[in-house]
Amino acid sequence: MENIQKWSAYLEGEIKKIDWPLAPHKLYEPLRYFMTLGGKRMRPILTIMSAELFGKSGEDVLPSALAVELFHNFTLIHDDIMDDAPVRRGKTTVHEKWDNNVGILSGDALMIWSYKKLVEQGSHVDELMNIFNKTAIEVCEGQQMDMDFETSDEVQIDEYLEMIRLKTSVLLGCALQMGAIVANASKEDQEAIYNFGQEVGLAFQIKDDYLDLYGDPEKFGKQVGGDVMANKKTLLHLLALKHGTDSQVKKLAELMLLKNQEEKVEQVRNLFTEIGIPALAKAEINKHDKIAREALAKIARPDAAKKPLLDLSDYLLHREN
Amino acid sequence: MENIQKWSAYLEGEIKKIDWPLAPHKLYEPLRYFMTLGGKRMRPILTIMSAELFGKSGEDVLPSALAVELFHNFTLIHDDIMDDAPVRRGKTTVHEKWDNNVGILSGDALMIWSYKKLVEQGSHVDELMNIFNKTAIEVCEGQQMDMDFETSDEVQIDEYLEMIRLKTSVLLGCALQMGAIVANASKEDQEAIYNFGQEVGLAFQIKDDYLDLYGDPEKFGKQVGGDVMANKKTLLHLLALKHGTDSQVKKLAELMLLKNQEEKVEQVRNLFTEIGIPALAKAEINKHDKIAREALAKIARPDAAKKPLLDLSDYLLHREN
Repeated sequence: MENIQKWSAYLEGEIKKIDWPLAPHKLYEPLRYFMTLGGKRMRPILTIMSAELFGKSGEDVLPSALAVELFHNFTLIHDDIMDDAPVRRGKTTVHEKWDNNVGILSGDALMIWSYKKLVEQGSHVDELMNIFNKTAIEVCEGQQMDMDFETSDEVQIDEYLEMIRLKTSVLLGCALQMGAIVANASKEDQEAIYNFGQEVGLAFQIKDDYLDLYGDPEKFGKQVGGDVMANKKTLLHLLALKHGTDSQVKKLAELMLLKNQEEKVEQVRNLFTEIGIPALAKAEINKHDKIAREALAKIARPDAAKKPLLDLSDYLLHREN
Repeated sequence: MENIQKWSAYLEGEIKKIDWPLAPHKLYEPLRYFMTLGGKRMRPILTIMSAELFGKSGEDVLPSALAVELFHNFTLIHDDIMDDAPVRRGKTTVHEKWDNNVGILSGDALMIWSYKKLVEQGSHVDELMNIFNKTAIEVCEGQQMDMDFETSDEVQIDEYLEMIRLKTSVLLGCALQMGAIVANASKEDQEAIYNFGQEVGLAFQIKDDYLDLYGDPEKFGKQVGGDVMANKKTLLHLLALKHGTDSQVKKLAELMLLKNQEEKVEQVRNLFTEIGIPALAKAEINKHDKIAREALAKIARPDAAKKPLLDLSDYLLHREN
């Protein structure tokens, strides 16, 4: 944990140092605001820890780490518009605080800044760009699938897992691979560390789905129950359809029509608990955690060098926010 | 002109060949649609002509040329959302044909694809990225200034020119400089060709403002009078405020309140003509055209090699759409 705290504080400081221009005010003020709302800084920490695993100092990959974090924040700003989300990290979202146009354009600028940071890495730029571009496109594909699922009645569990792989997990794999690239890791090690990140990402996102409904509102940064309110077919929902009795499935369909959102969230939560969703979700998290550990084990580096990454994945999968 | 037609046809063919993935359908179908709506392909032609001016074949800079064209189209898709524009190039805009979320996300994917194309250039990637990122950010700044001006009553002519420099002109300069970079032009020549593009861009945008009100609806791809309907402070408007008599300026303020949009456009057009705006706008176009020619003259290449670029700027400044 001290490693996570150390790098998190380091990144927080470096993010505060980003010299956003003063004008146009409405383009950069939202970025100054959003980039200092906090967050776990998980992705840039992965880039740093991966570089250190392969023998490079964390500070040496700062530009790549920031590129990943800026890109991630760009996706959050645009996703919040698309999902009409009012709250992020316990604070008002950009499009809610300003308006949709400000959210669109400041998000665009943030994405470009992520490429600007990437070039500042100064070495391996072609290789970094290849994985970064591939991943960035996949993240958009995942977001589109996520939106498509909202209006689809036939989402399968494997389609859902593919959606969260694209929307969330590949960026964790990419963050790690970028650190490995700058540290001159072999192609095999790059692939293994990418796979580690991808599997941690799947586990992480399922944990996120779980927290969205079962999280403590005091600790969880977002609106608890937001997925239920938006009738999102999260893994919890799909597991309920699969494992619920006919009458439980019928009841779920009825609850989804409830107009009173608070009541809807509470009743869906009770129904899911009755079906045994918490245990099923945890089993799925553990499955991906195991595959992640196997990928990490393949890398020919001492166990002590891998510990920070294992600690980080433990932290991510046992967090409450 | 035959050069413009040749490269335009070449680019049209290459753009058609872009292998957009099939799924998710709602992410890529808008890009297939929008990228084949036509357009002048002016920016990638500039990249190609610049490369040829400095002794490289146009085909060799295709990836850079496409990067610029994809980026430009990304800005159009997002600008159309922000401006709530229903028509582009005579066809329905993306957010109007689908919805705002589709416009936001497919625009995002298109921007990432522009970087993907850029890396495919395979050489000079760091240098290309530097000018491309700098320009891309400036384009966002220009768009924000443009939106800020909508709600401001005190836009000055020089602020307006700075806005269109950022929103439009720098990308023309960038397109040319990218061709020059790949063709190994000197820093001085890169700067001169960039300046040529920037000044042509200013003249081009003023021509665009002019066509928006005075264009032939049959030939102009966009809704004629759109700027007047949106109460945009275009150069025509600012020139009217500067050169109109007190009563003409007062009348303009009254006309801007008209609810009937067709009547508003016609009456504003008549008033502007009375003030002499067409001649004033043409003088401003000629001024920037002259500076552009001076920048091009500085480049130590034979006049014959410069002719395609001069023909292109002539075409752009005498076009009717």
